[in-house]
Amino acid sequence: MRELLESVAAGELSIEQAEAELAGYATGETGRFDAARGSRTGVPEVILAAGKTPEETASMAALAVETTDRAIVTRVDSPTAAAIEDRLAQAHPEATIDHTDRSETLVIHGPSFDPPTLDADVGIVTAGTSDAGPAGEAATIVSEMGAHLTRIDDVGVAGIARLIDRLELCRSQDVLIVAAGREGALPTVLAGLVDVPLIGLPVSNGYGYGGDGRAALSGMLQSCTPITVVNIDAGFTAGAQAGLIARGFDTARSD
Amino acid sequence: MRELLESVAAGELSIEQAEAELAGYATGETGRFDAARGSRTGVPEVILAAGKTPEETASMAALAVETTDRAIVTRVDSPTAAAIEDRLAQAHPEATIDHTDRSETLVIHGPSFDPPTLDADVGIVTAGTSDAGPAGEAATIVSEMGAHLTRIDDVGVAGIARLIDRLELCRSQDVLIVAAGREGALPTVLAGLVDVPLIGLPVSNGYGYGGDGRAALSGMLQSCTPITVVNIDAGFTAGAQAGLIARGFDTARSD
Amino acid sequence: MRELLESVAAGELSIEQAEAELAGYATGETGRFDAARGSRTGVPEVILAAGKTPEETASMAALAVETTDRAIVTRVDSPTAAAIEDRLAQAHPEATIDHTDRSETLVIHGPSFDPPTLDADVGIVTAGTSDAGPAGEAATIVSEMGAHLTRIDDVGVAGIARLIDRLELCRSQDVLIVAAGREGALPTVLAGLVDVPLIGLPVSNGYGYGGDGRAALSGMLQSCTPITVVNIDAGFTAGAQAGLIARGFDTARSD
Amino acid sequence: MRELLESVAAGELSIEQAEAELAGYATGETGRFDAARGSRTGVPEVILAAGKTPEETASMAALAVETTDRAIVTRVDSPTAAAIEDRLAQAHPEATIDHTDRSETLVIHGPSFDPPTLDADVGIVTAGTSDAGPAGEAATIVSEMGAHLTRIDDVGVAGIARLIDRLELCRSQDVLIVAAGREGALPTVLAGLVDVPLIGLPVSNGYGYGGDGRAALSGMLQSCTPITVVNIDAGFTAGAQAGLIARGFDTARSD
Amino acid sequence: MRELLESVAAGELSIEQAEAELAGYATGETGRFDAARGSRTGVPEVILAAGKTPEETASMAALAVETTDRAIVTRVDSPTAAAIEDRLAQAHPEATIDHTDRSETLVIHGPSFDPPTLDADVGIVTAGTSDAGPAGEAATIVSEMGAHLTRIDDVGVAGIARLIDRLELCRSQDVLIVAAGREGALPTVLAGLVDVPLIGLPVSNGYGYGGDGRAALSGMLQSCTPITVVNIDAGFTAGAQAGLIARGFDTARSD
Amino acid sequence: MRELLESVAAGELSIEQAEAELAGYATGETGRFDAARGSRTGVPEVILAAGKTPEETASMAALAVETTDRAIVTRVDSPTAAAIEDRLAQAHPEATIDHTDRSETLVIHGPSFDPPTLDADVGIVTAGTSDAGPAGEAATIVSEMGAHLTRIDDVGVAGIARLIDRLELCRSQDVLIVAAGREGALPTVLAGLVDVPLIGLPVSNGYGYGGDGRAALSGMLQSCTPITVVNIDAGFTAGAQAGLIARGFDTARSD
Amino acid sequence: MRELLESVAAGELSIEQAEAELAGYATGETGRFDAARGSRTGVPEVILAAGKTPEETASMAALAVETTDRAIVTRVDSPTAAAIEDRLAQAHPEATIDHTDRSETLVIHGPSFDPPTLDADVGIVTAGTSDAGPAGEAATIVSEMGAHLTRIDDVGVAGIARLIDRLELCRSQDVLIVAAGREGALPTVLAGLVDVPLIGLPVSNGYGYGGDGRAALSGMLQSCTPITVVNIDAGFTAGAQAGLIARGFDTARSD
Amino acid sequence: MRELLESVAAGELSIEQAEAELAGYATGETGRFDAARGSRTGVPEVILAAGKTPEETASMAALAVETTDRAIVTRVDSPTAAAIEDRLAQAHPEATIDHTDRSETLVIHGPSFDPPTLDADVGIVTAGTSDAGPAGEAATIVSEMGAHLTRIDDVGVAGIARLIDRLELCRSQDVLIVAAGREGALPTVLAGLVDVPLIGLPVSNGYGYGGDGRAALSGMLQSCTPITVVNIDAGFTAGAQAGLIARGFDTARSD
Repeated sequence: MRELLESVAAGELSIEQAEAELAGYATGETGRFDAARGSRTGVPEVILAAGKTPEETASMAALAVETTDRAIVTRVDSPTAAAIEDRLAQAHPEATIDHTDRSETLVIHGPSFDPPTLDADVGIVTAGTSDAGPAGEAATIVSEMGAHLTRIDDVGVAGIARLIDRLELCRSQDVLIVAAGREGALPTVLAGLVDVPLIGLPVSNGYGYGGDGRAALSGMLQSCTPITVVNIDAGFTAGAQAGLIARGFDTARSD
Repeated sequence: MRELLESVAAGELSIEQAEAELAGYATGETGRFDAARGSRTGVPEVILAAGKTPEETASMAALAVETTDRAIVTRVDSPTAAAIEDRLAQAHPEATIDHTDRSETLVIHGPSFDPPTLDADVGIVTAGTSDAGPAGEAATIVSEMGAHLTRIDDVGVAGIARLIDRLELCRSQDVLIVAAGREGALPTVLAGLVDVPLIGLPVSNGYGYGGDGRAALSGMLQSCTPITVVNIDAGFTAGAQAGLIARGFDTARSD
Repeated sequence: MRELLESVAAGELSIEQAEAELAGYATGETGRFDAARGSRTGVPEVILAAGKTPEETASMAALAVETTDRAIVTRVDSPTAAAIEDRLAQAHPEATIDHTDRSETLVIHGPSFDPPTLDADVGIVTAGTSDAGPAGEAATIVSEMGAHLTRIDDVGVAGIARLIDRLELCRSQDVLIVAAGREGALPTVLAGLVDVPLIGLPVSNGYGYGGDGRAALSGMLQSCTPITVVNIDAGFTAGAQAGLIARGFDTARSD
Repeated sequence: MRELLESVAAGELSIEQAEAELAGYATGETGRFDAARGSRTGVPEVILAAGKTPEETASMAALAVETTDRAIVTRVDSPTAAAIEDRLAQAHPEATIDHTDRSETLVIHGPSFDPPTLDADVGIVTAGTSDAGPAGEAATIVSEMGAHLTRIDDVGVAGIARLIDRLELCRSQDVLIVAAGREGALPTVLAGLVDVPLIGLPVSNGYGYGGDGRAALSGMLQSCTPITVVNIDAGFTAGAQAGLIARGFDTARSD
Repeated sequence: MRELLESVAAGELSIEQAEAELAGYATGETGRFDAARGSRTGVPEVILAAGKTPEETASMAALAVETTDRAIVTRVDSPTAAAIEDRLAQAHPEATIDHTDRSETLVIHGPSFDPPTLDADVGIVTAGTSDAGPAGEAATIVSEMGAHLTRIDDVGVAGIARLIDRLELCRSQDVLIVAAGREGALPTVLAGLVDVPLIGLPVSNGYGYGGDGRAALSGMLQSCTPITVVNIDAGFTAGAQAGLIARGFDTARSD
Repeated sequence: MRELLESVAAGELSIEQAEAELAGYATGETGRFDAARGSRTGVPEVILAAGKTPEETASMAALAVETTDRAIVTRVDSPTAAAIEDRLAQAHPEATIDHTDRSETLVIHGPSFDPPTLDADVGIVTAGTSDAGPAGEAATIVSEMGAHLTRIDDVGVAGIARLIDRLELCRSQDVLIVAAGREGALPTVLAGLVDVPLIGLPVSNGYGYGGDGRAALSGMLQSCTPITVVNIDAGFTAGAQAGLIARGFDTARSD
Repeated sequence: MRELLESVAAGELSIEQAEAELAGYATGETGRFDAARGSRTGVPEVILAAGKTPEETASMAALAVETTDRAIVTRVDSPTAAAIEDRLAQAHPEATIDHTDRSETLVIHGPSFDPPTLDADVGIVTAGTSDAGPAGEAATIVSEMGAHLTRIDDVGVAGIARLIDRLELCRSQDVLIVAAGREGALPTVLAGLVDVPLIGLPVSNGYGYGGDGRAALSGMLQSCTPITVVNIDAGFTAGAQAGLIARGFDTARSD
Repeated sequence: MRELLESVAAGELSIEQAEAELAGYATGETGRFDAARGSRTGVPEVILAAGKTPEETASMAALAVETTDRAIVTRVDSPTAAAIEDRLAQAHPEATIDHTDRSETLVIHGPSFDPPTLDADVGIVTAGTSDAGPAGEAATIVSEMGAHLTRIDDVGVAGIARLIDRLELCRSQDVLIVAAGREGALPTVLAGLVDVPLIGLPVSNGYGYGGDGRAALSGMLQSCTPITVVNIDAGFTAGAQAGLIARGFDTARSD
């Protein structure tokens, strides 16, 4: 403790870093960043840009880099990405920024960030091209948690041969995330053919009654094969739980 | 016309029969029976017992037999079946009554009823045992309209091998009705594998969010393979439209 | 097989064409095109632009032309139409493109495309001018499947004389698609007057409670005359099933 | 005032009667009866039995007879009817009780009750037998308000000839109440054919999506012909407003 | 008949006018105009611009003027108003156009239009400034049908003194339309204080649960005082039924 | 601590009492009773019988008496009341049990229970007789928390004079709970006339659209006068918060 | 009275001021301003800009300043703010305008406005940065009513240590407003730890099923700890009721 | 194969057993039993009694025992349990039947059944007594799949100390199932405190808006800490996926 305070006094440690180490969270201009979340829950704190102004998000992202050498931001639109890039260019010019338009995710790694690796395989399966956004959000989190990631795309049930052709690849994963919109039947069908944990990720395409992912969500919740589910378009949530399962396997394998 | 009135005067024709022939419908104690519906729309008038008292339904059924030599009643519970049987025992003791508990249908044939036959095949496919009720209601109508009926039961997508094993039988039908509850994925998957018209029939099993057939209905409406749909548990509607398609095939074949 | 591989080696057959012939589907940059769907299900594969970026849709459309000499795209907005036109101008300059604004459909025919024809009549009936979009989408698919198409427009039940005046034309069709918004009563009324299969197509006009087509959809599902239904604005689905029924009639007539 | 108090003192006027005359309402054991409602709003106060215990309803009914020489009770089940009959037998043995099972209404007239009459015609139209309950509730109120009532039953749109046959009768009414369940299309169609005020009364039959009268209600609210609407099964409300319109006609005619 | 055809031959009568007179409706480029609706139902045909392109609406409006010397258009946005004005400037330069922004209505009177007048009073009551749009739409129709119109604005229940101060004015009307958003309590309260027919018009303000007029609609449908209701923002519907009631009173008074 | 353990060893203190004092909660056969809730949150722990078996509820009630000398149980049906009475007769024969049918509440006081009193007035206002259940549940909690309770019943807005007559009584309370079903307008109207905190309590009467209290809830949430709200029929919740406000006033007054 | 009329005649009092003093409300160009609401209900009249045109809102704001020396406007977008500023610059150039973007509130104080003060503490607690808008709206009203305000931000349950660290501050308030979106668990958890009145304020963030604040609202209504609730984003309502409770404390303390 | 057929011929193997071994499923009187599901998906086939008649369920249960030496049945009411017991007493008198009322599960083990064991810990956490049913259903499946099960009951967030006291036990599990009704906040709070996979199980208690588990489901789907979710009361689904995760751990540990 004394050591830490001496570092602050000496200017070697910022106030935010010191607060994060002592309290578990750091206080910035626009909110608190739960820096201890990664070690406490196994899932790094992620900043949800939706519902915040671009400036608020940028400020939180900088605070994240300041205290944990990394920031993961989801639901990033163009003005928010620009605000983050401006802010980082000033505060942390040496950091690398990776912004993916289709999945609306943005990841920042500080220069001394040390990426984790897990000895476990996560497969992300999609029914079609329209599922690319939420599947990409899930992929980002899975990768940031260190699991080995395999993408198995465009195997929707309208042409079931496409799925059968990739069944062995599905079976060889430790855990599967299966993204589908419209009627969302893919996770139901696939769960009847594999023996690994499977998380259904409903996607907000489709129109009319049951549109915006509601049919997919309710179909997955009613699935005649047992699967767990996350909210519509909740790629982060699916990825984080798949990452936790992968983390457990990694630990079990290294026992 | 004069002839008809003379028959009434002579007591050879009841008032109801005469009214049905002149106006297209007959008026009983509790409502009108649309006796001309069969010839006008190709689908015989069916009496929906739900929402009527047992006595009202029995009265309508007797009126139907009186004017068309047949009565088809759906959603028949036990008190209604008893009321019909009582009424018929008095009014038309020679008629045959066929009441099926599981599908809640009741069919009466008068002694001179001449059943139609169509040169066309209707297949009724079910996902599981719980779909027996609505599928049975559909089967009743299809049979009464005269089509050749094939049942293909218990081929839900949880174990897709069961479906694959019966695919050729499905493909050989002229039209398919596919009944499924829970997530209702079976019609979607099957429609990607056959090239005949397919009517999805959602069934009201399942619980929680999307229960009571809502997930099945919305999934079928959102299906990534094109199918038509009827309301939850609407076996009669599915059967009647399949019967109309069969009727068209019959005509086309006899051209 | 050997022949096919020799064609690829000789550059006479593209990799996509060969893959489509062997596996049933072809893999492009942004997804797989189910080239075998037409022969397997009787309905050509259709690309739904909604939920895809303009570039993804354009890439899929080019792949469709490459493997089946035709592309059918629905829910096409202006940027997507432009992206497709750009792409085709480069890849298949000899193809003809037919883009209809009101129905948001776009059809491409390659130079060697041989359009199918079916000996069967499909009628598309609308209640009013506001139903033009979904009715047009249905018309496109019906035509592409080769059926003979008749439009019977603007016969909503508010002035029932308009409907009565065209009843014989309705009765002479092999199958009817009936599009209506607001309370959606037209298919219910018409189905009580004709003896051919009838598919209700609810349209998303109307406002307030039951708006956006929900009243029309629920009214058609509850119809006191038996009809099948598709989702709100699902012109493609209605057209594809009408096309399948027409296809069956065509086969039956040519037996 | 003094006179009134003298009557109370003399036992010629009950406390309840006196309170009703002074304050406009009377206070019983279980609530207040708004005795002045009839003169204030033109619609007599009606007791809704649903949500009250049989004893509470019986107590209110007695209070109504006490202060206005009449009680009108809706949604009366068997135990409630029995409780009212018991109570009245003791308190007002000379009153006449009219309880209708199908419409769940109960009307009590005290010996000195003087029924109103209006010079105006109210027509109540039903689509089918299942609409008898709410239509009967409406009929009770219309009659109690004194209008001349005509029933036009069983003219649903599935067989539109039944409606056309009774069109002139419909046109000759001053105001129409049109009851329908399922898709509820009858008021929409009828309002396009008559030029009198028309109130749609949705009925809670039908099942699945849009069941329990929801499709009928939303269809009537979306109707492409302008009509006003009351809640599902709200026969009393429809009857009361039709009665108020009839009352206006009566006044206008007697001007 | 011969006379009419001679007029067409002589160019004195357009084809549209002749068709309207013979068939009851006229066919333009984009739909049919139900010219006979006014005489058949008492309510003039109104063109709903929502769901039509500006050009379609303009074409229908011109057809309306051509056959009935008047056009009434609702839900008119700026591009539609411009399209109508352009069209009319060419086709009927002598017509007067009255476009009201707040209520999104547009009325055209041809030079020989003869406005109707009814001996009856319609009151339109609003809870607040936000109800101006739908109330204005109702006012337009009431006026075009010829009733005498009184506006009673800004008397919402939050400050009930404002309502009490105008109660006599409300009571002196023949029929009331009462517009309210949010919780929509005004028609309920007012209907307990007046003895004339009352139509509730729910307005789509308010946010969160029950927003967009849903709380107002459901509250009016549940009202403990009996009122009829129209859909959310359905000013035209409320006005047309109020107009029909006024029309009946006018007839009764002139008897 | 030592003292407490000695009491247990001596049999003077039950294990449950000791656990409750040490941990804040006591563990019985079927769950834990949060004995410290009263002192921690100001609201005594209440046992919700719904969702528990009669035996589970009875066991929890006995545990409550054991540790806090009182039990308050809500949503008590007849079998549950019987089970509690049986259990208490054995375990705590000296306790008094107060079971109110209409509000489904049951309160047990042990012989040494010392009831709290607060110097603050809570008014409970109801629109009609049907609101008696939830209003009674609220009254029970308010009384058990010690506030002075005033009931102001049957003042619904259908006859607004009844409300005006009792306005001064309403204004003299420190806080009001206002219960109403159907359209639930009473709290909105009353909140425009008083200057004390007001909690809306929607009641599950009413039928059709917005029935079961949904219209009342959404109307109160949308109220044009500011009020807070609790869930449908949540009398306990309304009473507990009114009690907390009363508790604050009591403290402020005794400062 | 005479005095007041003399002031008007002398031009010392505007017509609006005189009307407000006599009738309780003042009539402007676009509506009535309930000037007496503050004294009648304890909560100043607030102008809701949503649903009004910018000009209507500006006119109402000027009328408010004219009659009560203050205007409070909520849901103010940029065009509305500009319209108000323009209007005030002309009509009341000496007034101060305070417009807060994040909470969309605008407050105007005339030069002679005398702000109230209450001896009571209101705490506003937020789960995260996304709750800033509605929390800010609540804060504006609380301040304008004169209570002492404390903000306790960013203490959501995902990292419960942040909440525990500020528990004593929460406990020391007289009343709490707790704003949360997503699943809205914060008020439930906090209400189990404090003994002061607590108002839950659900916030419209979150997406998919239960998005737009619906999960937060329903969770707060179902809370296993008793809390009162306001509508989604209804900061004004929460603030006004907290202010009324504070006002009661102030009175109690000054007794 | 030949061997198998010889066994059938010799009567050593029933037809059902032979079919199950060859086709993967066995056909009984009322449906097919997917005997291969356990080896194919890792989760044994479970019979859902809801939607089946008691006789159908009993027949399926006997078929399950016949082919896999075990039957697991969920949603078992009393008549169904009786039918199964009758059937088993005749067909498999040596089998043991374990029927749990509270969770409505019934498990049958044949005499030669060899229970699996997994080296992995599954914790099932409940908020309160009302969650016992679904939690028990989950426990049954987890046990039947062979995982080590720990119950952590009655730790709802209303008294958060109860949860904190058991946090280490929660953290030591390999995977958690967390059951909660009402607002369902427990899984959200717990997921912020542990670093193992967590499955939320919403329970259908609660009433009013968000009742029947809807608030719990939507709150878990919106949770600000990432969790996966199953449908309301879907104990089997939660247990099966937890079992699959446990199975993965078991494999990883034995590598």
